[in-house]
Amino acid sequence: MADIDPGREAARRLDRIAQASEAGAGVTRLPFTAQHRAAVELISTWMQDAGLAVRMDAAGTLIGRQEGPDGAATLLMGSHQDSVRNGGAFDGIMGVILPLLALESLRDMGVSLPFAVEVLAFADEEGVRFPTALMGPRTLAGTFDMSALDLRDANGTSLGQAMREYGLDPTDLPGLRRDPRTLLGYVETHIEQGPVLQHEGLPVGIVTAICGIERHIVTLTGQAAHAGTTPMSLRRDALAGAAELVLAVESHAAGVPGLLATVGQLSIEPNVVNAVPGRTSLTIEVRAPDDGTREAAGREITAMARDIATRRQLAVVSERTYAQPATRCDPDLSDRLEKAARRAVGQTVRLASGATHDASAMADLCPVAMLFVACRDGVSHNPREHASASAMGQAVLVLKEFLRQTAADLSS
Amino acid sequence: MADIDPGREAARRLDRIAQASEAGAGVTRLPFTAQHRAAVELISTWMQDAGLAVRMDAAGTLIGRQEGPDGAATLLMGSHQDSVRNGGAFDGIMGVILPLLALESLRDMGVSLPFAVEVLAFADEEGVRFPTALMGPRTLAGTFDMSALDLRDANGTSLGQAMREYGLDPTDLPGLRRDPRTLLGYVETHIEQGPVLQHEGLPVGIVTAICGIERHIVTLTGQAAHAGTTPMSLRRDALAGAAELVLAVESHAAGVPGLLATVGQLSIEPNVVNAVPGRTSLTIEVRAPDDGTREAAGREITAMARDIATRRQLAVVSERTYAQPATRCDPDLSDRLEKAARRAVGQTVRLASGATHDASAMADLCPVAMLFVACRDGVSHNPREHASASAMGQAVLVLKEFLRQTAADLSS
Repeated sequence: MADIDPGREAARRLDRIAQASEAGAGVTRLPFTAQHRAAVELISTWMQDAGLAVRMDAAGTLIGRQEGPDGAATLLMGSHQDSVRNGGAFDGIMGVILPLLALESLRDMGVSLPFAVEVLAFADEEGVRFPTALMGPRTLAGTFDMSALDLRDANGTSLGQAMREYGLDPTDLPGLRRDPRTLLGYVETHIEQGPVLQHEGLPVGIVTAICGIERHIVTLTGQAAHAGTTPMSLRRDALAGAAELVLAVESHAAGVPGLLATVGQLSIEPNVVNAVPGRTSLTIEVRAPDDGTREAAGREITAMARDIATRRQLAVVSERTYAQPATRCDPDLSDRLEKAARRAVGQTVRLASGATHDASAMADLCPVAMLFVACRDGVSHNPREHASASAMGQAVLVLKEFLRQTAADLSS
Repeated sequence: MADIDPGREAARRLDRIAQASEAGAGVTRLPFTAQHRAAVELISTWMQDAGLAVRMDAAGTLIGRQEGPDGAATLLMGSHQDSVRNGGAFDGIMGVILPLLALESLRDMGVSLPFAVEVLAFADEEGVRFPTALMGPRTLAGTFDMSALDLRDANGTSLGQAMREYGLDPTDLPGLRRDPRTLLGYVETHIEQGPVLQHEGLPVGIVTAICGIERHIVTLTGQAAHAGTTPMSLRRDALAGAAELVLAVESHAAGVPGLLATVGQLSIEPNVVNAVPGRTSLTIEVRAPDDGTREAAGREITAMARDIATRRQLAVVSERTYAQPATRCDPDLSDRLEKAARRAVGQTVRLASGATHDASAMADLCPVAMLFVACRDGVSHNPREHASASAMGQAVLVLKEFLRQTAADLSS
């Protein structure tokens, strides 16, 4: 493979595995399906090309292992094989293919590592088929809830049944738990799914943390009224109150570094052209790499909603409907990844991940770090999702440098 | 009737005629139905009680006429008999009953008028059954479009067919046109359908004009984006742009006397909790008693939408989808009505009508004036619609004084 450009090879493989998809636009590859099986066949071949020993664990995680010296610890790499419905060809699967190309290249260069490496292709990160996700990393971390096996897909098939039909034995899941003392960490490569790297003109970035998320629903109630007979001064317009809140949320988030806040959903009653809106409900999603920042923002936004409601004589009900803490990437592992990026490709940047990844669950097991690859126009979960061959090639260089650096650090 | 309180008598009659309704909450009385027929029977009795000669014209307008001296002109009064679905017991029909009580009282007092009076109960003002309305006043004014007879209701029955089944001959409609030289004007009494009179603590008000209306649809397009991966500074959030426009519309209208502007409908795409909205459409309805004010506001709002879009890098499409000019009430007739109100009940106020009325179409025929009666909480088109017996009683006093004053002015 020495003569092959790794970026172009990554693009070729991603194009090929994108065919393992349900019919329709983009890629639809759900876990424990014929498409999953077709993807596993391709990945197995590429793992073997890189000299890895291939097996599948009871959670459907395909594992390619490059053995190290006796008793040496293992570095885990990888991501997930599945997609959303009509998703892109890069999300997840690119993070399986790039480390394989890095390992293959190192092998071709005759580099041998003083540790074992496993490349993992998790079955299900997106949680599209069953109302659960991250079973692969959770079984490794020992945080998987076995009752999730009873959850059913849209056809009424349970997760446990789908796994058995796929040839797996769910009763083996508890045995998958890994001993953290045998692990160096988990490094996940993933398409950014946002526009920051493209905006900065950089191929790769180092993830500081996977943001925590909280969601609120705020309902403002005023008085529905005839748009032709109610003077402006006598209105209690729920939409005007909601509009103030939308702008307050936006400007608050713009003023706090790292904070993201979004009003994504809004409904109005009665929602007719000739009535002053009497009631509005809206969702506010807050994300931050730091839980303190996120929780302070949630409290601040709730207080702003209350103030707006008081000033406009609206009733307000706020509810926090969801909260998920942030996952901090390991500082040492991330420093080493950043150093490797600077050596391999020059400039890089630190940025938070707004989306959840397999690394979120792996952080319960061992140190994690993430390498983001630039995403065209920030578009993801969409057939238009794209990472350039050039950026992917740079990412392979970074991973190779990271592996060499880790080898050097362990040997010193 | 001398001993009967006219307000209580009005409440009693309205309660009784509210029974002429389809089943369900509130009043549902559509034109050319069994309910219409039942209402006409009651109104006929009350017209005869007031000494009027009763007939129905070919448009289904029930007409009670009190003859005047030979060759004297005729004053028209009245309103419509029909309701919206699940509407109130006052909208329309109250404007038929109150002038009958005024005439009955004057007759009991031995007052004879030097002009003829007709009280009209129009069949269809709301336009609920057929996609047309105001046939009664339009046939009198000569503005009725005969092709409307082919319009069908939800059961596929055409307007012409419904009228024939009701016993009317639509071919007679063109002959209904009245000669304006024989008319003193049209005075309509109507529940306000808004909160102004209640807010001012007044039983009645004098209408300056029936507002003109225009409607706009504005669509703002930015970029839908992942709420977790798109920094605040790189967003093109269509909802945030729409929120600015909602507030700009509100504050612009608050600063222009008589202007009403309402964003009543708003839709978002993709409208999910974790996506920055990429597209928003909203309706803006503008009403003003003066067409210049309304049209200037429409232009101003369109310009504000453009400015907001430019500043936020959104695409904007604005369309004016509807426009209806204002109807000015006749100054002389309105002055006389106001003078009568001040004499009969003390204080009154001038206010615009945001809703359309039979008077809108009658204005094409003759001078019109309108007397508004206070409406509880401004609620109309709703089973909770209510005008107090006291306010209705005051309105009867005003109409009596108006008739006496008109008599005096004609005699002088």
